[in-house]
Amino acid sequence: MKTETPVPSAPVATADWPALSARRVASVKTSFIREILKVTENPEVISFAGGLPSPELFPTEALAVIAADVLRTDGRQALQYSTTEGYRPLREWVGARYAGRFGLAVDPDEILITTGSQQGLDLLAKVFINPGDTVALERPGYLGAIQAFSVYEPVFAGVPLSEAGPDLDALRATLTGRRVKLLYTVPNFQNPSGFTYPAAARRAVAEAVAAAGTVLVEDDPYGELRYRGEDLPPLRRHHAGTIMLGSFSKLVAPGLRLGWVCAPCEVIRQLVVMKQAADLHTDIFAQRIMHRFLAGGGLPAHVARLRAVYGRRAATMVAALRRHLPAGATCNDPDGGMFLWVTLPAGGDSRALFERATQQKVAFVPGTAFYVDGGGERAMRLNFTNTDEARIEEGVRRLAAALAGPG
Amino acid sequence: MKTETPVPSAPVATADWPALSARRVASVKTSFIREILKVTENPEVISFAGGLPSPELFPTEALAVIAADVLRTDGRQALQYSTTEGYRPLREWVGARYAGRFGLAVDPDEILITTGSQQGLDLLAKVFINPGDTVALERPGYLGAIQAFSVYEPVFAGVPLSEAGPDLDALRATLTGRRVKLLYTVPNFQNPSGFTYPAAARRAVAEAVAAAGTVLVEDDPYGELRYRGEDLPPLRRHHAGTIMLGSFSKLVAPGLRLGWVCAPCEVIRQLVVMKQAADLHTDIFAQRIMHRFLAGGGLPAHVARLRAVYGRRAATMVAALRRHLPAGATCNDPDGGMFLWVTLPAGGDSRALFERATQQKVAFVPGTAFYVDGGGERAMRLNFTNTDEARIEEGVRRLAAALAGPG
Repeated sequence: MKTETPVPSAPVATADWPALSARRVASVKTSFIREILKVTENPEVISFAGGLPSPELFPTEALAVIAADVLRTDGRQALQYSTTEGYRPLREWVGARYAGRFGLAVDPDEILITTGSQQGLDLLAKVFINPGDTVALERPGYLGAIQAFSVYEPVFAGVPLSEAGPDLDALRATLTGRRVKLLYTVPNFQNPSGFTYPAAARRAVAEAVAAAGTVLVEDDPYGELRYRGEDLPPLRRHHAGTIMLGSFSKLVAPGLRLGWVCAPCEVIRQLVVMKQAADLHTDIFAQRIMHRFLAGGGLPAHVARLRAVYGRRAATMVAALRRHLPAGATCNDPDGGMFLWVTLPAGGDSRALFERATQQKVAFVPGTAFYVDGGGERAMRLNFTNTDEARIEEGVRRLAAALAGPG
Repeated sequence: MKTETPVPSAPVATADWPALSARRVASVKTSFIREILKVTENPEVISFAGGLPSPELFPTEALAVIAADVLRTDGRQALQYSTTEGYRPLREWVGARYAGRFGLAVDPDEILITTGSQQGLDLLAKVFINPGDTVALERPGYLGAIQAFSVYEPVFAGVPLSEAGPDLDALRATLTGRRVKLLYTVPNFQNPSGFTYPAAARRAVAEAVAAAGTVLVEDDPYGELRYRGEDLPPLRRHHAGTIMLGSFSKLVAPGLRLGWVCAPCEVIRQLVVMKQAADLHTDIFAQRIMHRFLAGGGLPAHVARLRAVYGRRAATMVAALRRHLPAGATCNDPDGGMFLWVTLPAGGDSRALFERATQQKVAFVPGTAFYVDGGGERAMRLNFTNTDEARIEEGVRRLAAALAGPG
């Protein structure tokens, strides 16, 4: 190390960075949620705005034991460069999970481990989206997907989603009115709405998309977090070409950034080329930790605990909202996941409400954030997984006070 | 879990995947090195082909203690979603390292932690490269950069690199003959060649690029692995707009996928938007482990050990090659890094030699793999970090036997 005193860098270059930027930069917006999260850094604010799992439920001690053990027994492999496709035993676990839950025969070669399922979205966009291609998604839609796809400059088409499922007539009209390259769906406990596709809608969507020659993407980060009722069949049951995305973020822990894509081998090969260019491979230490945790048999009890705690929080929030919301406002009662969706009475404005709610020290995400083409002015997304029941009650009281306020 | 017996998926869809692919897919080739690595899976093969650090030098026990400790003391933060910019103490460490080594004043806000420095390349390409933009790089050039940039469909321009440094006349002609969006450089112990830019060339390159309004990228994954001589000033010393890439892969361990970009804040902000869309953030558990290892003071002794072992291996390989190579063949004697570069006598063909070498159970990478525009037929890249001295001697003997063989 040299002991030279730090000096300022050379004079700031005259580079005109905006002029040097690629065209795609203009098409991607920073998430409005990032701005909201700044409000929620104040610990006095009760935040229903984020999308975080509850950190006190992380299996930290089990993972601490496993992490040290992985390094002591397989440290040379766990710290070395590894394969782009991912750690084979983890890919096998994912395949076996599809078999066990849904009777789907998935080969490990059809699984690519990704750096969170967000990377799966980026890689799929790289493989499929040319500038100007039409990408269809639910409205309201998942912000992470909108951001990932936007980089590749598609034209978005919205398919209305309600508690009854996707609007099938609108979907068919979209698919026949133009060439749609890809349809992105979150059929279970959708983000932001908490809505779930009914069984019949799953078959109808899969069949319509297959007939149109559109790439069908089924993202399922929340499917294991079901608080009542039975699992519904994935779209993939009705259309073998369906590309499925999955994540360990809600099942175990998001900080490790582990997700996967399940797709036909031909697609996996293209995704692998893109992933090699994007980050070579996903953290192999994290993959080995996750695999040992899953293979060690700790998952069923862990998931049961998540379901019990989150299920109570969901029920608490729904009950509190139904007590406190004004006449004409609605909220759904999701069967699982992390979010629910409130619609204010006619004339309501959730962005104006957000400002008043901030003064009451409670936060949520206004619905407009989830629409690529306008809409959602009366709607809002509320997260219930990262707040305990007492704070949920208090937060909803504050929300009611904001609703009763001026404006 | 349902107990339903796994059944095959629905009949394979008729999707014509190649027809659905985006145009950029055709512009990215799977690395030829991947093919070569298959040959080297045979443990009887002495491989100089890969680019791996030596796994027996990984600080596995230190990291095992730290990993368990991070989860036990900060598990809720280490497993939760985190900031896109990266773990602030790690960003501060990187900034302080630039100050300590080179007297550069770098603010932590100028550092973005990436999922390996490969992701830094992908994000820079996303921010700067439009299809058809000219990207200049060394010939021979770093394959990972060629792959990352290819996704964004640039036109490549090669700047010849030799033991004397980059061809400055050729660089100036390239920069003035057309609008060059970005120049990618690896000034220290370059991959694949092991060549290092002399001090005077650094200033000349930085000044020429600054004058042209071209984005200058200085990738330095190997700079700390210097086996003799003194550190040379980074290009950034001569041009404050220089974007620097760094990596913990060679310094500590590649499996954790930790690298960084150091750039003006205005560029970091654009990179952050792109990273949020690409993978939200880098594994925060890995970032916290790395920071504790670095902050704990273990790095100087670790780096000293790497330098000692790798330096001996480099010297052993150079000496063996100089004994065994035929008249007219040359090899450099790199001051650091992981690779050296052999050029066969006139008429030599390193791809043909690769086939004969495989029969002798020794492997390397033929030079043609590193040229985007043809060239390198007589050249070959040899890695010396992942083979012990006795095997290096034996491997070079086998190479000599292959060289003496028919063809």
